[in-house]
Formats: sequence, C-alpha cells, structure tokens
Amino acid sequence: MADKFSIIVFSGTADKLIPLGILSQAAAAMGYEVNVFVTGWALLSFVKGAKEPPFPSEFASMAPALAEGMKKVNMQKWSDMLKEAKSMGAHVYACSAMAGVMGLSKENLNDLVDDIVGAATFLQQAQGGQVIFI
Amino acid sequence: MADKFSIIVFSGTADKLIPLGILSQAAAAMGYEVNVFVTGWALLSFVKGAKEPPFPSEFASMAPALAEGMKKVNMQKWSDMLKEAKSMGAHVYACSAMAGVMGLSKENLNDLVDDIVGAATFLQQAQGGQVIFI
Amino acid sequence: MADKFSIIVFSGTADKLIPLGILSQAAAAMGYEVNVFVTGWALLSFVKGAKEPPFPSEFASMAPALAEGMKKVNMQKWSDMLKEAKSMGAHVYACSAMAGVMGLSKENLNDLVDDIVGAATFLQQAQGGQVIFI
Repeated sequence: MADKFSIIVFSGTADKLIPLGILSQAAAAMGYEVNVFVTGWALLSFVKGAKEPPFPSEFASMAPALAEGMKKVNMQKWSDMLKEAKSMGAHVYACSAMAGVMGLSKENLNDLVDDIVGAATFLQQAQGGQVIFI
Repeated sequence: MADKFSIIVFSGTADKLIPLGILSQAAAAMGYEVNVFVTGWALLSFVKGAKEPPFPSEFASMAPALAEGMKKVNMQKWSDMLKEAKSMGAHVYACSAMAGVMGLSKENLNDLVDDIVGAATFLQQAQGGQVIFI
Repeated sequence: MADKFSIIVFSGTADKLIPLGILSQAAAAMGYEVNVFVTGWALLSFVKGAKEPPFPSEFASMAPALAEGMKKVNMQKWSDMLKEAKSMGAHVYACSAMAGVMGLSKENLNDLVDDIVGAATFLQQAQGGQVIFI
C-alpha cells in the first residue's frame, strides 16, 4: 500500500497556494497517495471564476518581487502543479462544512475539485499517513 | 491502541479556531486519541473571560458573511465542538512556555484546558500519530 | 530506527519562528531525527544579515508584551534553540525552489542552513515520520 500524504488547505492567501502545488506534485511524483482537503478561505480559490487571492499583509510589499522571481525561474502556477498532481492520482476535496457556510455546491467549484466531502471522510482517507495544515 | 490525532493551535485568529473544533470533534468521534496543544496567540482564546480574537486582516471584510453563513447552517461554535470532542476523550493542554511568557497559570485559563504541559510532554503524547499545526 | 519529526517553515512572521525553535529542540532532545525545511517568507530569516521579520498584523500590538514576557522567563532566541537542536543532530534545509525564486545561493544563507534541497528530497527525508507546516 502506498504511503499517504494529505494536505488541508485553509489559510487562503496567495502565497500558501504555492506549497500546495509544489508538495502535492512532489508527493504524487514520488508515488504517494495524495489527498487535498480545501476549506476555510482557501475554498475561495477553487470557485469557478475565482479572482486572485490576497497576499499576507506582512509581506504584500514583496509580492511583485516574488512574482518576478517566479517568472524568471519559470515556476509553474500552483494550479498547474496541482493539475499535474491530479494527473498522477491526487484527489482534491472541498470541505462540506465550509461549502455549506459559503452556500457553494459542486457546480460552483472549478474542475480542480473532485468532490465535496466531510471532515470525517477526509480523516478516514488520510488515516495512517502524513497530514499537513497549510 | 487507538490512532492518535494531535493538533498544535498557535495562530490565534478567529477563523483558525473553526478547524480546531471541526477536526477535534471529527477525530474524536472516529475513535482517535485526540490531543490539543494550545500555544502562541491561540492561548489568548483559552483565558477566562477571553474576548473574541481578531480575523486575519486579509479576509476581515468577509467575517460578517462567514458569521451569517455559519448561523444559516447552524454550525456550532468552535468551543462547543471542542467540548464535544472532550466529552469523547480529547485532551486540551496549554503550552507551559507560552503560559509562562504570558504570566498565566492554570487558574487564569478556562475550563477547556485540562492541564499545562511542556512541548516535550506533548510530543510524547503525540508520538506515533498524526500532528497538524494550525 | 529513530522516529522522525519534520518541520516545514513557511509563514515567516517573527512569532512562528518561536515554535520552530521550541519544537525542533524538544524533538531533538527526545531522540527524534529532526529535519527542517525552510521555504516561503521564512527563508528571509535564514539569509546572512537577515533583519527582524514582521509580527502578524493582527497581533503586532502585543509584540512588545511578548518580548518582555520572553525576557522575564529567560526564553532563548529561536535561533539559539535551533542551534541546540542542530547540535543534537537536527538538519536544516533551504527549499531550492524558493531559493531560486529569491535568487539566493548557499553563500547568501546563514550558517543555520546545512544545504539547499528540493521538495522531493525533503519528503523523502520526512518519509514515515511526523510533519508539520508552520
């Protein structure tokens, strides 16, 4: 049975989506079973037609330099890295509680999202593996 | 021996207390041994007579919509979810280092807190299980 | 084989470096194999001549009280705790992707950093152990 790597994405600022992309892609490429649980403010970035999320206020002044640096090294967009992770078997779930609070159903979410599930279902999928909370 | 799920709660903004409630409750209901270690700014929400913690500045404008959505779906308050987790066996510990820095002793903390322990004790309780840092 | 405890440090605000110090030191003292992966804004605190990172805006007004409390209980600086963790075997790696984006090479980083590695290498080192994302 493959090792599991699970990521709970909550914070929702633009910067924190980068490690989601990098870690999901790296873990999937290493053969991990990867499960992503999108909740909190991060869910706003998985809505159809989502606009760019904010940078953390403490580092917002460095956002242009970060964007330029990412362009210079040809870093992929986080969503493209996550798509690659998905093409290698990763799954992305939206949190049913947060979707309910935001009045969102499956049709409102973009095609990165495989399904809407509850926290218990997610914990079950994550059971026995590593879990990080971003 | 039950699987373990441990949560280090640090950030202290109001939004991050919601996943504390949801995940501790879900994990306890699934039969996990749940241990919560409260430290950093989050400890301010476990002081007797604690006032409402702030929302993260980047999403503060959405706090009223979030509160309204939570009311509409009858989501429990995070502290009630944590109480339910505790009724199912979860334990909540305050970090001794942070309590010391803030000049807090057991009497200053509300009844969600079972005890004040050090990081080494917490790591020992968490050993062999999943740990997330919120 | 020793249990593993791995810490991904991303957020980069001053407060989040404290649990990095405390947890790395405690875990190393308990005999864990400790690996730290520095990325995101946190990498700015591992550059030679780094200036003090900002406090989170929501709690910035409490930073002086925190500093005073830390002095009163003689809490070590996070970097000294991390140095002690390293003296007990902990390793600190800078994320190659973030270093590339920021245009940093090994010579630009301070002596807390052992090496620059990719996410896949880090995940491999962390495999089978606990991982937290700060």
